[in-house]
Amino acid sequence: MTRGNFCSVLVTGANRGIGFELVKQLLGLPKPPQWIFATCRDPRDARAQELKTLASKHPNLVILQLEATDEVTIKAAAKEAEAHLAGKGINLLINNAGVMPPSTLESVTQEDMLSVYRINVVGPMLVTKAFLPLLKAAAKQSKEKGWCCSKAAVINTSTIGSSIGNPPSMNTFPVISYRCAKTALNMLTRCQALEYKEDGILCAAIHPGWVKTDMGTEKAELEVEESVRGILNVLSNLSEEQSGRVVDWQGKLMAW
Amino acid sequence: MTRGNFCSVLVTGANRGIGFELVKQLLGLPKPPQWIFATCRDPRDARAQELKTLASKHPNLVILQLEATDEVTIKAAAKEAEAHLAGKGINLLINNAGVMPPSTLESVTQEDMLSVYRINVVGPMLVTKAFLPLLKAAAKQSKEKGWCCSKAAVINTSTIGSSIGNPPSMNTFPVISYRCAKTALNMLTRCQALEYKEDGILCAAIHPGWVKTDMGTEKAELEVEESVRGILNVLSNLSEEQSGRVVDWQGKLMAW
Repeated sequence: MTRGNFCSVLVTGANRGIGFELVKQLLGLPKPPQWIFATCRDPRDARAQELKTLASKHPNLVILQLEATDEVTIKAAAKEAEAHLAGKGINLLINNAGVMPPSTLESVTQEDMLSVYRINVVGPMLVTKAFLPLLKAAAKQSKEKGWCCSKAAVINTSTIGSSIGNPPSMNTFPVISYRCAKTALNMLTRCQALEYKEDGILCAAIHPGWVKTDMGTEKAELEVEESVRGILNVLSNLSEEQSGRVVDWQGKLMAW
Repeated sequence: MTRGNFCSVLVTGANRGIGFELVKQLLGLPKPPQWIFATCRDPRDARAQELKTLASKHPNLVILQLEATDEVTIKAAAKEAEAHLAGKGINLLINNAGVMPPSTLESVTQEDMLSVYRINVVGPMLVTKAFLPLLKAAAKQSKEKGWCCSKAAVINTSTIGSSIGNPPSMNTFPVISYRCAKTALNMLTRCQALEYKEDGILCAAIHPGWVKTDMGTEKAELEVEESVRGILNVLSNLSEEQSGRVVDWQGKLMAW
């Protein structure tokens, strides 16, 4: 890690899977962030218990209630984060929350298409909008030259299945609503990168690999620890070269 | 035109702009289609008057009521087309209907994102699903080798603004909800191409250029007649090489 000094980080969907592992590994860094904001839909739910146990041991870990499709909770979470930060900005926003219900071209419904788009695309867009003032503040306060994750960055979670240029077959990856939404998310990322460049904010998307989580299932090829180690290493080294791009957990650029 | 012999064609959003011009030029071909199904949301509306006038002069032009986000109207339109076709299939389905409201990353709302996705992505998906049996029938009945529009094809209407690899700036093309949705439509097209290949159906997307229509405004560079002449020429020459791709009105492949 060359520039992996994240002062403050926010991770959505942080109670499980990749989100939870990101929080754990951030806490275990030689120089952990001053603040880690870990959001989940329902902190009172049993599925947030592990995250709560972790927070009880780490005063720099703050759990925020945030539903990525509900602007009221997003704005409330941004206010709460702002109060903790006391004038400082957020360096790194990781839009990790997402869903992947099975759907083929035959089985997919209008409701499925819309609900997956809402959670996987509109959610990251709304969250980024709400936290933009804190990201801009971080960029202004930073002494870093150029664009990097220890200054100010938005990272959206994408997938190899969103590549139009090099797509897996429909049999290999039968999740049409997810694939269309994630491709749109790549476009959103690219547009965010174009738009927020002058504010000093880096925007990129990351493909975490096929990971053994509730979403990836037990059949997946990668342990979550390995994927997240890779992701944090990649984030530490991101620069303007990867701005607007999709990068995998090993740092390779993905074909559009 | 080398293979421009479309026996039956369906065009959505056919009462205005590019859709209406497609119908007009198809009627004017040396060998016009046996059936042209021109759909619009409300055939009783004043904005469908020109289309109705045209239909009164051309018995091979059938107007169908179809709202691309309403499955009831889509299925009813498919039934009506089937009755006219009397056992024959549909060769060419052109998903032309779409919307493009202005939206920047700052102004865009959740409702805007969802409604544009619904009309521009979910609509073509639902329409294609409903007409799939008629497209498959056309592919089976055809003596053409390979994949082409005079055998069986789905053409989705895309845009240069959906290119992630070579995107126009946000100032040049400030329609974020439209751009994200059309990028997703490119992915849908690619998945449809993969899935329907074995049924003999070609799937591709077309960028019509920046056209002087209600959507493109008077400032656009291209007359609708010229764009549509180009589109019909491109469609006549599409083959498996362009399957799953976005092609512009002059036949050039677009970067993803």
